[in-house]
Amino acid sequence: MARIFQIEKKCPQTKARTGFLFTRRGIIETPVFMPVGTQASVKSLTPEDVSGLGARIILANTYHLFLRPGHELIARLGGLHCFMNWPRSILTDSGGFQVFSLAKLCKIEEDGARFQSHLNGQEYLLTPELSMEIQAGLDSDIRMVLDTCIPYPCPYEEAKRLTELTHRWEERSRLAWQKNHRESLLFGITQGGMFEDLRRYSAKVITSLDFHGYAIGGLSVGEPHDLMLKMLEASIEELPEGKPRYLMGVGTPHDILEAVSRGVDMFDCVLPTRNARRGTLYTSFGKISIKQARYKDDDRPIDPECQCYTCRNYSRAYLRHLFMAGELLVYRLNTIHNLHFYLCFMERIRNAIRKGHFEEFKKHYYERKEEVEC
Amino acid sequence: MARIFQIEKKCPQTKARTGFLFTRRGIIETPVFMPVGTQASVKSLTPEDVSGLGARIILANTYHLFLRPGHELIARLGGLHCFMNWPRSILTDSGGFQVFSLAKLCKIEEDGARFQSHLNGQEYLLTPELSMEIQAGLDSDIRMVLDTCIPYPCPYEEAKRLTELTHRWEERSRLAWQKNHRESLLFGITQGGMFEDLRRYSAKVITSLDFHGYAIGGLSVGEPHDLMLKMLEASIEELPEGKPRYLMGVGTPHDILEAVSRGVDMFDCVLPTRNARRGTLYTSFGKISIKQARYKDDDRPIDPECQCYTCRNYSRAYLRHLFMAGELLVYRLNTIHNLHFYLCFMERIRNAIRKGHFEEFKKHYYERKEEVEC
Ligand SMILES: [Zn+2]
Ligand SMILES: [Zn+2]
Repeated sequence: MARIFQIEKKCPQTKARTGFLFTRRGIIETPVFMPVGTQASVKSLTPEDVSGLGARIILANTYHLFLRPGHELIARLGGLHCFMNWPRSILTDSGGFQVFSLAKLCKIEEDGARFQSHLNGQEYLLTPELSMEIQAGLDSDIRMVLDTCIPYPCPYEEAKRLTELTHRWEERSRLAWQKNHRESLLFGITQGGMFEDLRRYSAKVITSLDFHGYAIGGLSVGEPHDLMLKMLEASIEELPEGKPRYLMGVGTPHDILEAVSRGVDMFDCVLPTRNARRGTLYTSFGKISIKQARYKDDDRPIDPECQCYTCRNYSRAYLRHLFMAGELLVYRLNTIHNLHFYLCFMERIRNAIRKGHFEEFKKHYYERKEEVEC
Repeated sequence: MARIFQIEKKCPQTKARTGFLFTRRGIIETPVFMPVGTQASVKSLTPEDVSGLGARIILANTYHLFLRPGHELIARLGGLHCFMNWPRSILTDSGGFQVFSLAKLCKIEEDGARFQSHLNGQEYLLTPELSMEIQAGLDSDIRMVLDTCIPYPCPYEEAKRLTELTHRWEERSRLAWQKNHRESLLFGITQGGMFEDLRRYSAKVITSLDFHGYAIGGLSVGEPHDLMLKMLEASIEELPEGKPRYLMGVGTPHDILEAVSRGVDMFDCVLPTRNARRGTLYTSFGKISIKQARYKDDDRPIDPECQCYTCRNYSRAYLRHLFMAGELLVYRLNTIHNLHFYLCFMERIRNAIRKGHFEEFKKHYYERKEEVEC
């Protein structure tokens, strides 16, 4: 397959690296955080807001868009970019994770995942081929193969069975993609549950299928943090150095820092956007809840160090007022701040790696979080 | 009082006129529509959105801001402009209308209106002096005297009693304003219920109190449209030509057109913003409901003639999808469109008056609405 990833700089102490990911809609600097636009909208923001924050790629959810408004409708209207007015890159997931977590009565069969829509109960069979067809209708730039979701905890034999079923689904995904969708990139997903040998085995099999990039799936599903990192390490050791690595659905700034240290290049997570809508805001001194009475009279911005639109223009007191009054504007102002925080955090990580002091950056980050209080 | 209003051009056939209203935060072209920012936010929009739409003045509600977050808090934070990051003009109402329509157990006494907060049941007495104090705390540019709200229907004697009580409250409002708030403008409000002689009487008394501008209150409270126009005409005939006239809380584009014809200069109304959040959109061919299934596949903008941000970038199909999916972005996109419609409508009215063909504009507007269908 064509070269789509170029490593720019490696950290001498950790496995962290910076790089460039080439998509047909632009070059993306890695490590990258992709804001989540579940239903063809990064909640409360316009595309201009999102690109103004520095995002060059967002994630959209195949499951949600398949059910509503439907990929065929989006295809007729010119694809997802045109539909939602976002001209930059889009990564779509396979829909598998939402089928397992949101849908009713999900049943895994050899052919695919049978489920009932959480919206109206209608039954569907999501096969690897259908997932590729939906993603082709959406016309996303990076597409994910369909995988299974291994619960935690899960016995060894069951984890092995589901991992091997995933491998067969991924082969079928690849074949389906090859027929019609060569203009996009296709990422494989490694599984293996919480077993190191299965993790290594899965990463090797998936690598042999030769994808443009590799996701590490099935992590952050309830397991202890240390176990997650161990599984991540085992998976990454078997993945090719020269391809991008994507840790799906992760996570907190802390998770991201640890995963970057282990060689992960791509992230997505609903945390910054969902927390924003709940009034939880990220700052250089930890998280704050804007609901708290202590901010009633507080004329300072959320984070005096933050340069986002919200912090340049609004006080904590105003944001608290909007939040308590249920005013719609607060969701947008909070989302701008939290995404700015995440995207700046990624930029600072990239710059630290480039300048060869990622290790110090990491140490400083942990020290600072402990010492500062608001 | 200082000259704060200048008539630019009068329509030769109707009583319509264009003019300039001078506030300490800028000059406002009239006839003007003021978007409503009830709780220190024009719902779903940033101040930049609002000024980008061409608005130079917004309305904020004294009742709401008094209860939450409180005028003293806003005063400590530098006033409403600073609090909400809106540097242009703000008109505040007296709080009276909301006390009568929203609060629990409202009781009119000689001294003021006794009511219980709709938020927590706490009891307050809103006097003319307190209303002036709240508005001074908010530091608005145009302030309204406290008036009573005459229900419809209402017997003559009761309407007369309330009208005369209003006159006493307005005198007290004026005195309170003179003590501390000379930097702002103060508008009186004429009442009179649905009785022509009371309307004329009230307008004369209020005129004699010499305010910067005059509102026509107590209309659009359930009475027939013709009766509303008749009361409006009676009130305006007794008001001074050279002062701005403000028809509070009105209304539809049709209402505005008829009121402008009768010499009204200022309007505010929640219709464009509230309808936007309910999916009802104004177009050059009438109102549409974006929820309708007919727009599912429709790749046209809301109104092909509209040049707003929403119409330049999004299809009816996308807006319908966002609305059906409950995505927050749709409230903002719809609000932008509806306010753009209202503000453009006012601009077209002003230009028609300036060019001396307001009568044709009005005729054309009614003809067009009848003939076009979508
Ligand atoms: Zn910020
Ligand atoms: Zn429009």
